[in-house]
Amino acid sequence: MEPKRIVVIGAGNVATHLTIALKNAGFSIVQVYSRDIANAEVLAVMAEASAIDNLKQLDVTADMYILSVSDGAIETIALEMPLVKGVVVHTAGSVPMDVLNRFNLYGVLYPFQTFTKDKELDFKKVPVLVEGNISHSKNVIMGVAQHISTRVQKADGEHRKALHVAAVFACNFVNHLYVLADELLEKQGMEFSLLEPLIRETTSKALSIKPLHAQTGPARRNDKQVMRMHQESLNGETFHHDIYALISESIIRTYETQRNSE
Amino acid sequence: MEPKRIVVIGAGNVATHLTIALKNAGFSIVQVYSRDIANAEVLAVMAEASAIDNLKQLDVTADMYILSVSDGAIETIALEMPLVKGVVVHTAGSVPMDVLNRFNLYGVLYPFQTFTKDKELDFKKVPVLVEGNISHSKNVIMGVAQHISTRVQKADGEHRKALHVAAVFACNFVNHLYVLADELLEKQGMEFSLLEPLIRETTSKALSIKPLHAQTGPARRNDKQVMRMHQESLNGETFHHDIYALISESIIRTYETQRNSE
Repeated sequence: MEPKRIVVIGAGNVATHLTIALKNAGFSIVQVYSRDIANAEVLAVMAEASAIDNLKQLDVTADMYILSVSDGAIETIALEMPLVKGVVVHTAGSVPMDVLNRFNLYGVLYPFQTFTKDKELDFKKVPVLVEGNISHSKNVIMGVAQHISTRVQKADGEHRKALHVAAVFACNFVNHLYVLADELLEKQGMEFSLLEPLIRETTSKALSIKPLHAQTGPARRNDKQVMRMHQESLNGETFHHDIYALISESIIRTYETQRNSE
Repeated sequence: MEPKRIVVIGAGNVATHLTIALKNAGFSIVQVYSRDIANAEVLAVMAEASAIDNLKQLDVTADMYILSVSDGAIETIALEMPLVKGVVVHTAGSVPMDVLNRFNLYGVLYPFQTFTKDKELDFKKVPVLVEGNISHSKNVIMGVAQHISTRVQKADGEHRKALHVAAVFACNFVNHLYVLADELLEKQGMEFSLLEPLIRETTSKALSIKPLHAQTGPARRNDKQVMRMHQESLNGETFHHDIYALISESIIRTYETQRNSE
């Protein structure tokens, strides 16, 4: 009863990693579509599929259609597709499932990781979030997802959105703090790599105990003298200074609230 | 000519890891001092040293004295110590070297890592920053440091301070962003561990290429629609909302400046 024949629409980073994982799990990839036939061919060769660049050539008998294209292109492509009977899914975090509601069976298969095309990655460990318009679609998508990942769970649009915002904080913003730290070191002729052991320890600690309990530093101790000294040293640098002040205040409030509720 | 006989003053996390590393590198630890003799004894046993809890008992013939105590206690202990001839160092990032200036030879040996007492750690990889009041002190301290770490470099008080502020951004503040992300997930009944693969990938990318070039996300793309949607979803939560706005603005400015200077 499992869907065996899959059509992949898109040939970018996510499509590539997903297709390889599906192929390795034993699924048959029948077609790879891309506007650019050369891109479609690269992936099609890897997947032993045919490459197409025209949606009219779409095999309408496949069990599943995976739209793994840019957020903005999902709706357009869905409208251009023939009305297939298989389950149609997209792979985007912040696009509602219902842009696919002209099909009978549809949903979302959202792999929650950043993918770099030429960098190998163990898909088994990638969390995959699944949504389906009816329970049959959901079960079919879950079944496929569980063949390629050990971390599959259901998540509706609200959950995916929360996860996306959380990732902005925990990844995009974290990287920017690294940028700010690097700027401070560069000014003194020091290398970012000096921070490496400390960064690795911070990350591993936050992942092994709850980050709330891993917090250290002057703001956690509410050490006003050190914080004042640091902020004075940042006076010429608007964003460093303001970010230092705001996050310190947020840390102080976090543990104040905790103290008051104890 | 190398100092062979070392006295350790303090028995906390840093003192413990440092003493073990020195012992393993072949130095002779002659005494361990702590106000609390029980603490001194635990470390003294490991280091095959004598434990003391009275600074009058200090062996005045040692080659080096390492004050590894809380920032506030360094000056007090330095004043209580006999005027020894060996090199006196402290191990603190944000305390000026000159609190030790009643001695002839003094300086700083600052291991740049967070230490947890019962957690083993490869000291060889810990960056150690060294300062000395005259070149002789500096050379002696460098010599000792190079026996326990492969990452020793000179750094004056200004450099140590910049490094400390950078660590607040790259470690303390990063952990707080994890806390904020965890709060968002918890509200939707989701686990922080969902972010683990993404966090690990972000960290490893920032450490392998410059973080400036690793930046991704809506602010990096200046995607105002997604940023507005995210901020609306954070409206009830002051710090989440304000931190989202400020860091996004800082990211936009960072790459704007870059674009303008190209």
